[in-house]
Amino acid sequence: MATDQLSLVFQALADPIRRAILTRLTNGDATVAELAEPFNVTQPAISRHLKVLETAGLISRSRRATARLSHLEAEPLRDVTTWLARYQRFWDESHERLDELLAALQNNRQDDPDRAEAVSMKGNEDG
Amino acid sequence: MATDQLSLVFQALADPIRRAILTRLTNGDATVAELAEPFNVTQPAISRHLKVLETAGLISRSRRATARLSHLEAEPLRDVTTWLARYQRFWDESHERLDELLAALQNNRQDDPDRAEAVSMKGNEDG
Repeated sequence: MATDQLSLVFQALADPIRRAILTRLTNGDATVAELAEPFNVTQPAISRHLKVLETAGLISRSRRATARLSHLEAEPLRDVTTWLARYQRFWDESHERLDELLAALQNNRQDDPDRAEAVSMKGNEDG
Repeated sequence: MATDQLSLVFQALADPIRRAILTRLTNGDATVAELAEPFNVTQPAISRHLKVLETAGLISRSRRATARLSHLEAEPLRDVTTWLARYQRFWDESHERLDELLAALQNNRQDDPDRAEAVSMKGNEDG
């Protein structure tokens, strides 16, 4: 398993329970018992998930009396978003191509409904 | 290992070689040999990485003559960015707090350099 920081963050996010824990922590700090409560898993299992999140820098932990509180640390998610931003033009492009096709179909339909139908069918064959 | 789509995408991104493959594919489709070339790994290892990327929907594969070409599919990265967007206010907030602290220090420094120093030291104690 890769151990660079970005890989650790992606690895930590690759589990629905760990993502649900992060979502819960957006409402405020929580104990292991509070985090375990909505899930059908044991507190030790939650503790293992918290360890993965802590190693990735996505939570910090502090002690309040006998309870150990988890706190969301969102900064690594900004780094992930920065990394993803470089791919934005590729999903934008595919949307632009779709927008262009829809605009062309719309124009053709206004000019000649039969021709628009032909373009639409050709589009289906190419897809 | 979780098998929901978002988990598969995060899992696929949790490896520096797989992320480098995606970056390479932003320059155009590529064969396994072309993708293996910059890395000190075998073509079968690259093929295993491509399988993980394909399962996550991050690449598609097509055959041209005897070569098998990989093509970047960026749409799942948009879904990841959408998921991350809900956390943006948490990293923005921590930046706002920092901005406020810096602004306060700046104002104090203009009013009274000695007092600004004291605020700075208090900030360190609180942190």
